[in-house]
Amino acid sequence: MDQNRIYNFNAGPSALPLGVLEEIQRSFLNFSGSGMSILEVSHRSKWFDDVINDAVIRTQRLLGLDDTYHVLFVQGGASMQFCMIPMNFLNSNASADYVNTGTWSTKAIKEVRNQGKQASVVASSEDRNFSYIPKDIPFNSDAAYCHITSNNTIKGTQWSSFPEIGGVPLIADMSSDIMSRPFDPAPFGMIYAGAQKNVGPAGVCLVIVREDMLERVPDNLPAMLKYTTFVEKKSMYNTPPCFTIYTIQLVLKWLEEEIGGLENMEKMNQKKAGLLYQTIDDSDFYQGTADRDSRSLMNVPFRLPNPDLEQRFIKKSLENSLGGLKGHKSVGGCRASIYNATSLYAVQALVDFIKVFEKKNG
Amino acid sequence: MDQNRIYNFNAGPSALPLGVLEEIQRSFLNFSGSGMSILEVSHRSKWFDDVINDAVIRTQRLLGLDDTYHVLFVQGGASMQFCMIPMNFLNSNASADYVNTGTWSTKAIKEVRNQGKQASVVASSEDRNFSYIPKDIPFNSDAAYCHITSNNTIKGTQWSSFPEIGGVPLIADMSSDIMSRPFDPAPFGMIYAGAQKNVGPAGVCLVIVREDMLERVPDNLPAMLKYTTFVEKKSMYNTPPCFTIYTIQLVLKWLEEEIGGLENMEKMNQKKAGLLYQTIDDSDFYQGTADRDSRSLMNVPFRLPNPDLEQRFIKKSLENSLGGLKGHKSVGGCRASIYNATSLYAVQALVDFIKVFEKKNG
Repeated sequence: MDQNRIYNFNAGPSALPLGVLEEIQRSFLNFSGSGMSILEVSHRSKWFDDVINDAVIRTQRLLGLDDTYHVLFVQGGASMQFCMIPMNFLNSNASADYVNTGTWSTKAIKEVRNQGKQASVVASSEDRNFSYIPKDIPFNSDAAYCHITSNNTIKGTQWSSFPEIGGVPLIADMSSDIMSRPFDPAPFGMIYAGAQKNVGPAGVCLVIVREDMLERVPDNLPAMLKYTTFVEKKSMYNTPPCFTIYTIQLVLKWLEEEIGGLENMEKMNQKKAGLLYQTIDDSDFYQGTADRDSRSLMNVPFRLPNPDLEQRFIKKSLENSLGGLKGHKSVGGCRASIYNATSLYAVQALVDFIKVFEKKNG
Repeated sequence: MDQNRIYNFNAGPSALPLGVLEEIQRSFLNFSGSGMSILEVSHRSKWFDDVINDAVIRTQRLLGLDDTYHVLFVQGGASMQFCMIPMNFLNSNASADYVNTGTWSTKAIKEVRNQGKQASVVASSEDRNFSYIPKDIPFNSDAAYCHITSNNTIKGTQWSSFPEIGGVPLIADMSSDIMSRPFDPAPFGMIYAGAQKNVGPAGVCLVIVREDMLERVPDNLPAMLKYTTFVEKKSMYNTPPCFTIYTIQLVLKWLEEEIGGLENMEKMNQKKAGLLYQTIDDSDFYQGTADRDSRSLMNVPFRLPNPDLEQRFIKKSLENSLGGLKGHKSVGGCRASIYNATSLYAVQALVDFIKVFEKKNG
């Protein structure tokens, strides 16, 4: 590959489109004729205004958001959203529904209860090690909102479609699958995604909030923890993480202009994941860990017959320029994260390696 | 200049050392032999471990911190610290002293009161439009802490030395002058600085907390708003803003290896500021706005005889490759921010322009 780059299967931060990286590199000392690096440009300048406005407009267009949705950039990652959501949207007399599908949902629930507020866990897949997405969930029609994690990065499960819950606003942590497929935004009161998987580098959370949700925001929250501050100041109450937003803008441009939108992206993601899952399923040596009907198109965890072989697999894969295949420290095993920017070539290279490794070690 | 770069006098984000930018650019597609961009490298990898550990060690060394101080990287800028400080360090029965020297102090005070807690404003320079640093301040010996803003970016004032307040921990917002000069850290319970002026790009706040302060942190704060979370997890409870931290590491390396530490940096800053203030003082056309004994070495605001001339000055300066000289929107006029990375050459170019402009328009 170019510049001795590897095939990157990291779970996040993760692969970015090479063209995006090259564009950043090319203009790094002189951004858009400003005579300054994008790192040095004022956030109150026309240069940065163009960047953030374009990132917002592309997000709206890619996700098909109407003008009742605000697109915001908030620091602190999804973990900050875990506490901001109940602060802003859940009063102490009400209760919110949470579906627990793994580590991140569990943390989100913990932050609600830590505030002395009510999180009703209406379904959980903890009984089988979070290896599936629950079905037939008894949602509460009087819940303040219903929170789900659309894709579980660690366990490799994903909601293939979103639950219908009537008028209760759906809130989704889409950190690891935003922009990977089209969906109807209408049921969502809020969508959020740490950027560092599908849309950019680490350092910002993309937050999409529907106008009616803002009526709930208490006046006395700290300015930096109120969604209304971000709405009123267009994410610039204070200096935003400019470079991260700039990279997101370029990734969204790539999604629109190179990929051709989320329908195309989904097809490519299905093709990549299909190839990888098929390879695993065709073998008795490798074992997928998620239920088939809950499998993620983004994160593909799998086991080998024993931990020694897994360690050897990871070591050998690195020698073959395939990086990031170690499973999350909490579960072990192997995992290939194949986000939007991971190409079919990369997945093909992985599949080839998987087959060769089995032949030599199976 | 190289690559048609301008002389950058932005108040933040602001100029970075050219060598730092060039190093980022050079390794942008393949960081440290990883085969990945620094944007794509896992925060749990040895590559990033080396980066963040080096940034911490250099901060300790440059500021002469002993091991009772923790160096943390927290998202949300200084504005997030305005609310985190009282959340973590001020209980509802106690009171904290605040010195009000401008916009940022005012915001910090507001966040304390917004939490229903006591901020005692022991001194303020609001009576003369924040043009000076108060003296002979009646600090409260039983205050939970005393908060100051070491440098006021907007008004161009700076504490030339820090107040002696006995055993009360001093907390300083050093966003616009950290690493610009050496100082004794011992009186400080906490120091914080949004990175985007003297130490890096926007997107992270450098937070230095003394061990004894951590005893005050209430258990029930959200994980992302507790300093103890950042201490225990070494700023990696969740994915940190890796690229911003990497850039900070390179700036600190530049400070140590190119500049030779904070004593040298201070001398250079004094020389740059001295040259600029002298030029202003030698002229009747330009007028500095801060009291002489409160002048900042970092931000030099000045006025011309009338707003029309100021507008013309800013327009002409841009035509002469001098950027960022417009005063803050809240005060108008002109301002030159001459942070660490702004070279003496840049200041000399500005001084030359200032003189020529006066000749033509005075």
